[in-house]
Amino acid sequence: MVESPVSEFDLVALLAARARLRPDVLLGIGDDAALLQPRDGMQLAVATDMLNADVHFPADAAPADIGWKALAVNLSDLAAMGATPAWCTLALALPCADVPWLTQFIDGFFELADAHDVALIGGDTTRGPLSVCVGVHGFVEARTALRRAGAMPGDAIWVSGSLGDAAAALYLRESPAADTPPRLLHALHARLARPTPRLSLGHALRGVASACIDVSDGLLADLGHLCAASGVGALVELAALPTSEALTAAFGSQHRWQLQTLGDDYELCFSAPAEATGQLCDIARQTGVTLSRIGWIVSGAGVRATDTLGQPWTPARTGYVHFDDD
Amino acid sequence: MVESPVSEFDLVALLAARARLRPDVLLGIGDDAALLQPRDGMQLAVATDMLNADVHFPADAAPADIGWKALAVNLSDLAAMGATPAWCTLALALPCADVPWLTQFIDGFFELADAHDVALIGGDTTRGPLSVCVGVHGFVEARTALRRAGAMPGDAIWVSGSLGDAAAALYLRESPAADTPPRLLHALHARLARPTPRLSLGHALRGVASACIDVSDGLLADLGHLCAASGVGALVELAALPTSEALTAAFGSQHRWQLQTLGDDYELCFSAPAEATGQLCDIARQTGVTLSRIGWIVSGAGVRATDTLGQPWTPARTGYVHFDDD
Repeated sequence: MVESPVSEFDLVALLAARARLRPDVLLGIGDDAALLQPRDGMQLAVATDMLNADVHFPADAAPADIGWKALAVNLSDLAAMGATPAWCTLALALPCADVPWLTQFIDGFFELADAHDVALIGGDTTRGPLSVCVGVHGFVEARTALRRAGAMPGDAIWVSGSLGDAAAALYLRESPAADTPPRLLHALHARLARPTPRLSLGHALRGVASACIDVSDGLLADLGHLCAASGVGALVELAALPTSEALTAAFGSQHRWQLQTLGDDYELCFSAPAEATGQLCDIARQTGVTLSRIGWIVSGAGVRATDTLGQPWTPARTGYVHFDDD
Repeated sequence: MVESPVSEFDLVALLAARARLRPDVLLGIGDDAALLQPRDGMQLAVATDMLNADVHFPADAAPADIGWKALAVNLSDLAAMGATPAWCTLALALPCADVPWLTQFIDGFFELADAHDVALIGGDTTRGPLSVCVGVHGFVEARTALRRAGAMPGDAIWVSGSLGDAAAALYLRESPAADTPPRLLHALHARLARPTPRLSLGHALRGVASACIDVSDGLLADLGHLCAASGVGALVELAALPTSEALTAAFGSQHRWQLQTLGDDYELCFSAPAEATGQLCDIARQTGVTLSRIGWIVSGAGVRATDTLGQPWTPARTGYVHFDDD
C-alpha cells in the first residue's frame, strides 16, 4: 500500500480549516457537494474564472498574491452585476503538494474572502500544471442587477478608480527602466498583484447606472462589449482617463493611453444618464472610490477614442485576447 | 492592431450557441455573471471538479469523451446528494484555439447536459495546458439531501451498477494483453470514457439511504470517507462486488478486486437499514440500475474487506491519491 506524504485530502483539510462559516451554508467542504440555502425572492449571480501560470500570472509570483487575485477577478464580476458575494468554490491544480506554497496561497485567498464575508464551500485539489479556477455566487434583488445591456445614447460613460497601473507593472517587468523609482514600481505592482473588486460601488450603482461591465480585457474592448450588448456606440476622451500619480510619473501620455486600454484593471466601467451626476458624486463620496466621466454613449455602434486634439486614436492592441497568434 | 484568427470571444460564442434555455436562467452566457432564479424553499447543491490532461485523461483522448466525462464526474457528485441538476459552468484551458477539437468537446459535453436538462450558464476559455473545470448546481428539497454522515451499525452497504471496468480499461491501455477480445476492450473503455452519473438513482434514494457517496477515488477509500463522516466502520465482502461480464471475462478474481477498488467508477455506494431491502428492489426496478449488497456497517472505525474464505484482504493501493510520490 502506497502511503503519500501529503495527500489530496490533507490539502482539502488545509482549505476547510480556513473556510468561514455562514448561516446559509448548511453543509460546506467535506461531502460530495455543498448544501446552500438561497434567500427567498433573491436572484443568484454566478461567475467563474480560471487563472493559469505563465498566462495570467508568472509561475513564480507570490502565492498569496495568486490566491488574492484568483478570487478578486471573480468578485469583480459580481461587482459589475451589483451583486453581494456569498459563496465561492476553488479548484486548484498544483505540480506537487507544496504545503508552504499552499499555506501562503490560502492566506491571500482568505484575506480577501474574509473581508467580504465569502464562504469557501467546496472545491478540488488535483495534480497538474499550476492553475486556479474559482467560482463565485452572490445575491441580488430581483430586477436590480446591473447588466451590459441598457446604455442609451446621451448617457455619460464613467470609470472607477484609475486605469493602467497593472499593465504598467507588467510592462516594466518585461522592459525594466533603470530610472523608475522603487516607490513607483511598488505602487504599480500592487495594482497588478492585488486588484480591488469594486463591490460596494457596484452595489451602490443599482438603479443609477444604465449598464455596467468590469474592465478586465481592456477599457475599449470591455466598453465595446457593453456597447454591443446595449446596441449603441461610445465616444471616449482619452485625456479624461483617470490616471494614478505613479502612472503619471512613470509614463508620458501616449504610452499611458496604451497601458490604460490593455486591461487587468478590474475597475467598473458604466453608463448613466446625465442627470445622475449628482447621485454619482454622492456614491463616490460614500464608497470612497473616485469616479471619472470619460465619454458619452452615442447611437450607432463601436467605440471611438479621441486624443487631446479630438483626433481619432487607435491602440496598438485593444486588450487581452487569449488565443491570438502573437 | 493585432487581429486574432480565433479569439476567446469566438470560443465563448461556440459554447453559448449550444447552451440550453431554462426558465430559471434569467441571464446566461454573455454578461459578467449569470443571473439565476433559485426555487423558493429548495436548497442548492454545488460541486466542482477539475480534470487535467495526462492526470485525469490522456491528452489525446477523444475530445467528445473529455467533454462528457468532465460534466459526468460533477453530475455524479450531485447524484450522491440526491439533487436534481439545473445549471453548470465550464472553464476551459486550451493550448491553442483548435476549433475542430472544441466542437467535438462541446458535442460530448452537451450530449450529457441535454440528457439531464442542465443549462450551461457561464464560464471562461483561457490559454494554458489542457484543463477542464466544471461547476454544477442542483436543487434538493430541504432536509432530504443524502450525506456521507448518517450510516448506522447494522445498516447494509450497497453499490450501484458494477465496479472496476474503468480501472481495467486503464490497466489494459498501459499493459495491453494480446488475447483480450476487442469487444471486451470496447466495453471496458466505454465505462472509462463515458461514466454514467446515477442521477435518478440518487434522487430515488432520498429518505431510503442513511448515507451516500459516489465512487470516484476507489470503493474502499470512498466507503472510508462515508464511515469517517458517520463515525462507524464497515465490513465488505469482496465476493459480493458487482462485476460486469467484460471484467469477469478479462480478469481473475484477485486481479479483479484490485481493479474494483481503484476508482473512476462513478457508481453510488450507500448504506440503508436492513428493512429497506424491499424498497431498494423497487428502486432498482424503477431506475433500471442494478443494486448489490456488498457488506455491513459496524460500530468502530475503518473499512475491512474479506475474501471468499473470510480472510482479511488489503488492496495494493486504496484508490487515487493525486499527490503521492510514486
